[in-house]
Amino acid sequence: MELLKNRIRKDALVLDEHILKVDQFLNHQMDIRLINEIGKEFKRRFQDHNITKIITIEASGIGIACIAAQYFDYVPVIFAKKSKSVNIEGDVYCVEVQSYTQNKEYNVILSKKFLNEKDTVLLIDDFLANGCALSGLIQIVKEAGANLAGAGIVIEKTFQDGGKLIRESNVKVESLVKVRSLKGNVVEFED
Amino acid sequence: MELLKNRIRKDALVLDEHILKVDQFLNHQMDIRLINEIGKEFKRRFQDHNITKIITIEASGIGIACIAAQYFDYVPVIFAKKSKSVNIEGDVYCVEVQSYTQNKEYNVILSKKFLNEKDTVLLIDDFLANGCALSGLIQIVKEAGANLAGAGIVIEKTFQDGGKLIRESNVKVESLVKVRSLKGNVVEFED
Repeated sequence: MELLKNRIRKDALVLDEHILKVDQFLNHQMDIRLINEIGKEFKRRFQDHNITKIITIEASGIGIACIAAQYFDYVPVIFAKKSKSVNIEGDVYCVEVQSYTQNKEYNVILSKKFLNEKDTVLLIDDFLANGCALSGLIQIVKEAGANLAGAGIVIEKTFQDGGKLIRESNVKVESLVKVRSLKGNVVEFED
Repeated sequence: MELLKNRIRKDALVLDEHILKVDQFLNHQMDIRLINEIGKEFKRRFQDHNITKIITIEASGIGIACIAAQYFDYVPVIFAKKSKSVNIEGDVYCVEVQSYTQNKEYNVILSKKFLNEKDTVLLIDDFLANGCALSGLIQIVKEAGANLAGAGIVIEKTFQDGGKLIRESNVKVESLVKVRSLKGNVVEFED
């Protein structure tokens, strides 16, 4: 997605070899026009699936998922909650996830009543790196017996192996931009 | 807002005298059509202000703010981050806030580069009860020297005093629905 590559070239900051800061337009301040274009592009890539629910995880995926849902005939968005402690309440799916960047574990929690085997789910998130959060969401969709259409990711860091591993498990992953390196403070995109 | 009152009557759960659970349509699963109507109503109530930024706080305000921003000529949304520990990084506004419901303190953090005295800000959140989070956001807008148009709230619990106190400080607070009591498992709205 050329529009997004150009925006990254213009406004993203490379903090180190692993961290690309996009707080100018994506995950602190949000450019709503850009995110509408992102939503349209997700629709283009998943138009042949009959999506009934979009699922994301708090917090930075929520705005993207809500805007995108408008292009999928206003399907409901569910955002999974994060919890650092084991805190199962009511009838919920709860998957423990290892955060590599923060070096701690947390739970991904979603109420069972919002997901069932009649649903076809699109997962949406801002970043894909080691894929821990996304793997947790995939596990929940499988536990619910729902159909998984795939995952729409805004920025994938292909020098980390989350995308590779998840694609190998036969999940369709569509990343709008793929970053292969941040070395030397330079953003290099996949061709 | 009659549409919202009817939805609360139909799908909200009263957990106790203080807690109204709206996870069916607002803050876990999100009804994107309803939230578009909410966005239009915020626009109607703040149409005479020249809003340049919408600010909310993670996590459940983000989707509402992003959808609403489309009706304010796609102004940028900034979501303030919560942090339980003192964690000031870079040049940020950081206000400590007391959470009454969770009985602990947390920080509300917003990067200084995204807010200045030329901005006119609309604050948006899903709930207003004791007003702690909203007061934190108001303090940040004032520190930045920005103009505060007011706050757009989806559901205000008027049996708690946040709305009263904030209005007494001359901030315009527009709540789409006002709940005056949850006693006896019944939702009573203000007239």
